[in-house]
Amino acid sequence: MERRPYNFSAGPAALPEEVLRQAAAEMLDWHGSGMGVMEMSHRGREFGAIIAQAEADLRELLAVPAHFKVLFMQGGGIGENAIVPLNLSRGGVVDFVVTGSWSAKSYKEAQRYCEARLAASNESDKHTSLPSPAQWRLSPEASYVHICSNETIHGVEFHELPDLAALGSRAPLVIDCSSHILSRPIDWSRVGLAFAGAQKNIGPAGLTIVIVREDLLGHALPVCPSAFDYRIVADNGSMYNTPPTYAIYIAGLVFQWLKRQGGVAEMERRAVAKAALLYGHIDGSGYYVNNVAPGCRSRMNVPFFLPDDRLNEAFLAGAKERGLLQLKGHKSVGGMRASLYNAMPVEGVQALVDYMREFAAAHG
Amino acid sequence: MERRPYNFSAGPAALPEEVLRQAAAEMLDWHGSGMGVMEMSHRGREFGAIIAQAEADLRELLAVPAHFKVLFMQGGGIGENAIVPLNLSRGGVVDFVVTGSWSAKSYKEAQRYCEARLAASNESDKHTSLPSPAQWRLSPEASYVHICSNETIHGVEFHELPDLAALGSRAPLVIDCSSHILSRPIDWSRVGLAFAGAQKNIGPAGLTIVIVREDLLGHALPVCPSAFDYRIVADNGSMYNTPPTYAIYIAGLVFQWLKRQGGVAEMERRAVAKAALLYGHIDGSGYYVNNVAPGCRSRMNVPFFLPDDRLNEAFLAGAKERGLLQLKGHKSVGGMRASLYNAMPVEGVQALVDYMREFAAAHG
Repeated sequence: MERRPYNFSAGPAALPEEVLRQAAAEMLDWHGSGMGVMEMSHRGREFGAIIAQAEADLRELLAVPAHFKVLFMQGGGIGENAIVPLNLSRGGVVDFVVTGSWSAKSYKEAQRYCEARLAASNESDKHTSLPSPAQWRLSPEASYVHICSNETIHGVEFHELPDLAALGSRAPLVIDCSSHILSRPIDWSRVGLAFAGAQKNIGPAGLTIVIVREDLLGHALPVCPSAFDYRIVADNGSMYNTPPTYAIYIAGLVFQWLKRQGGVAEMERRAVAKAALLYGHIDGSGYYVNNVAPGCRSRMNVPFFLPDDRLNEAFLAGAKERGLLQLKGHKSVGGMRASLYNAMPVEGVQALVDYMREFAAAHG
Repeated sequence: MERRPYNFSAGPAALPEEVLRQAAAEMLDWHGSGMGVMEMSHRGREFGAIIAQAEADLRELLAVPAHFKVLFMQGGGIGENAIVPLNLSRGGVVDFVVTGSWSAKSYKEAQRYCEARLAASNESDKHTSLPSPAQWRLSPEASYVHICSNETIHGVEFHELPDLAALGSRAPLVIDCSSHILSRPIDWSRVGLAFAGAQKNIGPAGLTIVIVREDLLGHALPVCPSAFDYRIVADNGSMYNTPPTYAIYIAGLVFQWLKRQGGVAEMERRAVAKAALLYGHIDGSGYYVNNVAPGCRSRMNVPFFLPDDRLNEAFLAGAKERGLLQLKGHKSVGGMRASLYNAMPVEGVQALVDYMREFAAAHG
C-alpha cells in the first residue's frame, strides 16, 4: 500500500506520520546524547529540556494564562475522575452535568469523595442533546461544576463553554476535554481546571495533562495520594514521581507538529471542514444515520448507523480492505464511529465518505 | 562512536539495543497492521495479542504461580506507596521495615491510610546494613509487612526474602522490587504482593507492574480510586482504564529479549559477575569507597565515593568523554552511582572499572 491506512480509532488513536518517523529516527540517540529518550534520567539536562519545551509549546498552542499550572500526570481520564474531587471538592458539594458515558462515570466516581449532585442530564434522550446551561440546577455552595466538553462515545460536544459567572455561580468549571483538546481554543476565563488523557487527540496512552488555575491548588483531601496531589505535582515540576517520559516526548513532538501546521486555529478550521464533510454525507445519504442534535454534534467523534446492524461486519470488512481502520462503534452504542482527530487528514474523511457512498449503493 | 555509550542511569535506564531497534522498525506499522503500537485501540485484537504475550512471558520469566494476578498499572513506585495500603491495609496495622529512602517514603505515605508501624530500621547506620529479620518487631495483627527488596538510592539489597511464617507472622509480605525485578528469581511462597516501576530494570517509565496473590484482592478502602483498585484492574484485564499501551509493548520486547538471553537465571549469573567486578575493584582500589555492609550490597545499584568530593566533576567529565553516562550519585547520598541493570553488559562494567583505575592513577 503506498499510503498509510487511515486510522479512525477513538483512542489510542492515529499519530502524524512525521511524528512517528522522527521518533523512530531518534530511538537510539536523541540529539547526539548517546541515549534514547526512554533511557534518560528524568532528572537529567536532556529530559529537562524535552519537558520544558513540551510545556512551553502546549502553553503557546492553547494560550494558557500564566496563573494556570500545566501538570503532566498518569492515570488517564478515569484516574482524574477520582483525582479531581480528591483535590478540588474539599469534601463538599460538586455539581455534575451528565451528557454521556464519560460524565456519567465522573459523577459516579466522585461520590466516593464528595456530595455529588446531578445538575443536569441528557439521559432521557439517550445522550443525543445538550441541556441548556440556563436550565442547570447549580448549587450555590458547589466546590466546582464538572462537564465533559466532548463525549467520545456519544459524540456530543459543547461548542461553547458555559459561563458559570453569568449563571450566578462562583464555582470553577472543570472540563474533561480528553477527546477534543487542541482541536479548538479554550476560553480560560470560563475554566478552573481542564484535564485530558493524551491518548485521543495528542497521542500516547499513559499521559494525562492537567491545566489548573493556581488558586485551586493546596486543598487536597488527606486521603489524596501524594503522587496525585496537584500542589505536590506542581511544586515538583511534574517530577514528584518519575513522569511518563517517553509519552511526554511524543506529546512534545505532536505539539511541534501542530505549530508547524498552523496551530489550534488551523486545527479548528480543518475540524470544521472534516466534520461538515462527514455529517453532510450522513444526512444526505438517506442510508446512514447520526442521532445527535445538530447543534451539539461532535467534530471529533462521529457515531453513525447503517440501516441494518446485520450489515455492520460487511461494512467493517470492506473498510479494512480499503485501509480505513478501527471504525467499529463503542459497544455501548453500537454501529460505527469515526474519530476525526487532528492527525486525521481531510483526505482520510473523503476516502471514508467515498467508501460509504459505494457501500450504500451496493447494499441500499 | 562505534558502540553506543554505556548508560549507568538508575532509572529511567538503558534498554537493550535490540529492543530499541525493533521498536524503531515497527514504529509506523506493527506486524502489517498498518498501525504503530501507539495508535492502536487497547480494545483491538492487535493490542490484545501484545498485552497477552507480555503477561505470559513475564509469568514464565518469574515463574509466577497461577494464583497470582499480573496487573499493568500507572503511577510508579510512589503511586504504589498509596495504592498498596489503599488496597491491602483494611485501615488496620501495617509493619514497615525501613532500609533506605524508598521504604522510608512508603512508610510515610501509608500513614494516610493505616496504622503504619516501624518494625525495623537501619537509619542509625545511615542505611548501610540490613536489620536481621529475627529482630524485626512484627505486629500479630498486621495486614501486611512492607519491605523494599532493593534500595536504589542506598544500594542495599535483600539477597534472601524474609520467611514471615517462620518468624511467626501470618501477614503477607509486600515487596517493592522496582530496581531489581527480573535480575533474580522471586520466592513466591514468601510473597503476597510484588510491585515494580518499570523504568529501572525493565524499560519505559509510566508503567507499574503489580503481581498480587488473588486472595488479597477485594478489600480496597472506600476512598480507593477505581482506577487503582486491584480487584477492578484484575477483573478488567488491566483495561479498566486505558493502559500505557506503548510502555507495555516495550516491556514485552524486553521480556522477549530476556528469554533469548537465557531468562532470569542468566540475568542473575551476569548480575553476580558484574557486581563482583565493580565491588572487587572498589574494595581493592584503596581509592574508591562503598560503605554498604558486604552481605547486603546491591548487585544493581552501586554507590561509591571518591576520596575528595572536589574531584567528582572531573570524574564525571572524563567518564562522559569515554561514553560512560549518568554516573552521578543521588543528591541525598552524593558521590557516584553505577546502576548495573539487565541491559548493562559486563563490557560496560569493565569499561567503567578501566576508567576508574586510570582516574585514580592520575589523581591518587
